[in-house]
Amino acid sequence: MAADHLFLRACRREPTPRVPIWMMRQAGRYMAEYQAVRKKVSFLELCGTPELACEVTLQPIDKFGFDAAILFSDILVVLPPMGLEVVFGDGGPDLPSPVRTAADARKLAVPDPITDLGFVMEAVRLIRRGLAGRVPLIGFAGAPFTLACYAVEGGGSKNYEHTKGLMFSDPASFHIILDKLARTVAAYLEAQVEAGAEAVQLFDSWAGILAPGDYREFALRYVRQVVDLLRGSRTWASGGGVPIIYFLNGCAPYLDDCARSGADVLGVDWRVDMGEVRRRLGDRMAVQGNLDPIALFAPEDRLRQRVAEVLGSAGSAPGHIFNLGHGILPPTDPARVKLVVDTVRELSSSPRDGA
Amino acid sequence: MAADHLFLRACRREPTPRVPIWMMRQAGRYMAEYQAVRKKVSFLELCGTPELACEVTLQPIDKFGFDAAILFSDILVVLPPMGLEVVFGDGGPDLPSPVRTAADARKLAVPDPITDLGFVMEAVRLIRRGLAGRVPLIGFAGAPFTLACYAVEGGGSKNYEHTKGLMFSDPASFHIILDKLARTVAAYLEAQVEAGAEAVQLFDSWAGILAPGDYREFALRYVRQVVDLLRGSRTWASGGGVPIIYFLNGCAPYLDDCARSGADVLGVDWRVDMGEVRRRLGDRMAVQGNLDPIALFAPEDRLRQRVAEVLGSAGSAPGHIFNLGHGILPPTDPARVKLVVDTVRELSSSPRDGA
Repeated sequence: MAADHLFLRACRREPTPRVPIWMMRQAGRYMAEYQAVRKKVSFLELCGTPELACEVTLQPIDKFGFDAAILFSDILVVLPPMGLEVVFGDGGPDLPSPVRTAADARKLAVPDPITDLGFVMEAVRLIRRGLAGRVPLIGFAGAPFTLACYAVEGGGSKNYEHTKGLMFSDPASFHIILDKLARTVAAYLEAQVEAGAEAVQLFDSWAGILAPGDYREFALRYVRQVVDLLRGSRTWASGGGVPIIYFLNGCAPYLDDCARSGADVLGVDWRVDMGEVRRRLGDRMAVQGNLDPIALFAPEDRLRQRVAEVLGSAGSAPGHIFNLGHGILPPTDPARVKLVVDTVRELSSSPRDGA
Repeated sequence: MAADHLFLRACRREPTPRVPIWMMRQAGRYMAEYQAVRKKVSFLELCGTPELACEVTLQPIDKFGFDAAILFSDILVVLPPMGLEVVFGDGGPDLPSPVRTAADARKLAVPDPITDLGFVMEAVRLIRRGLAGRVPLIGFAGAPFTLACYAVEGGGSKNYEHTKGLMFSDPASFHIILDKLARTVAAYLEAQVEAGAEAVQLFDSWAGILAPGDYREFALRYVRQVVDLLRGSRTWASGGGVPIIYFLNGCAPYLDDCARSGADVLGVDWRVDMGEVRRRLGDRMAVQGNLDPIALFAPEDRLRQRVAEVLGSAGSAPGHIFNLGHGILPPTDPARVKLVVDTVRELSSSPRDGA
């Protein structure tokens, strides 16, 4: 039954009676219900406690009427079992011992996600049970280049000097890091699918800092490796081939490259015209996006107009999943989130090509 | 004589015997000579003292062999005479009283640059004298949208929530701010040309945070206003029509729009393929860029290869000015800067189409 769900059909570019919608960071700080849970535990404890991760994952589903749930977790959870300590403070994540040398790269482990990240798989199982088939569950992981940015830089950065410095000065070591991250991520996503994830999303938040040639060599190549490993796995085949979504923040320079990522769906940010994305990708990928998250700060009529514009430029061909171009920002009014969901349902319900 | 200079001819897409080169922030913290001056005065005092601004502007010219000088100043100097206090601290610029309301927008002044920013024009005159015709002098200003980001946000920002918040919730007030900035910038650039600037560059560092439709409405429109005002001015005509360079950081989503900016040269960042830029702009604009500033951290052979790649993708048609895709970073080794200049001179000196 889940395979027939609106969201999964749109991922496969099959006709749907309306455009499905979910939002990145739909379980998050903008919700009072989430804040109440976070008052009791730290962010890391929340990620590490399956019952709580399940609770916050489910919070926005019925409240807003999203067409998919996404596992509550963090892309950095794979780093500690690889041998990298991560501290979550108020100023974002901090890695006290980042990967800076060839020796550091060689020391990185490729962990077994079942034993080392079992709490995530337990959360996936609990969420599936909690959803009871209402909407599909999306699992996720960070894309290798984005994880490498955190691993090498040691935290957020303006120019990513350490990461690109290593990439330019010792590309062989940087490739070792990326390969280990790709194998870790592929095994991790496979375990999530085995535990019940019905789609998976790779988050490439930082590959948009690269020149196009570097993007192909250091980012796209390892996205392909993850996709190929996942598609080649027994779990993936026996799971009926769950859709793979590739979200690339700052995607505009690399659209033609993305079409060769091997993923089923390209998630795009807001700094690109959705019509241009559709033209460039043709019938090779479905698309997901691309409302500016800050458009949710606009008055109601203007916000409705922006939603209509995204729907209009995506056109009526099958294969559009409505989403923001980035995560919901904490100061967002939940009523605006509901307005976007309702507007997408209303405006996209008229007859569409092939539907 | 200056009109025949390599750099100015390339701006006009006239054939040149080799590709001219200068670098954004070529006068800056990576140079010991600059650091020595900065030990004696604050950044703001340096911008405000014509003799010192002249001294640091000239420092890199002969040392590295750049083909153009650029006025040492800061894009934010126009804000205090508009009525906005700016404090330069270690964490970047800070505006204690940003523009957040319709009333704030109405209060903004459109200053007379000759009386309020005379120290800049004095620096321009001193630099022209100091250069004595060796290379042309580029004047500059911030583009209206980028200046509005600082004015509204009050400093640097991750998501520019205040700026976009105002843009979405009260576009009329935001347009008032942008119009006043455009008129201020146009008059300011006109005064620089009158004082002796032989080309001008508009820096649009932040317009790359906008969805394409918003870019056209809130950024490009005001770039055009500046360009039109400048081209319509008597000073511009009597100055022989100095070239106008429009640098847009994160330009990839808006290339077709940029071709309608009215500028002569498009300055591009590194997250775009230079060949793609040339194809999209055709013969409508010259191009400037686009080496990743962090490529200067690479070993010599790899850096030379990256320079060759930029030259190769720009092709041999007239109208390429070599530059970085963003400013030189402070930890850059000056020897690498020299290597880039020498490599561009060497590799682009072979016979080129039309040369």
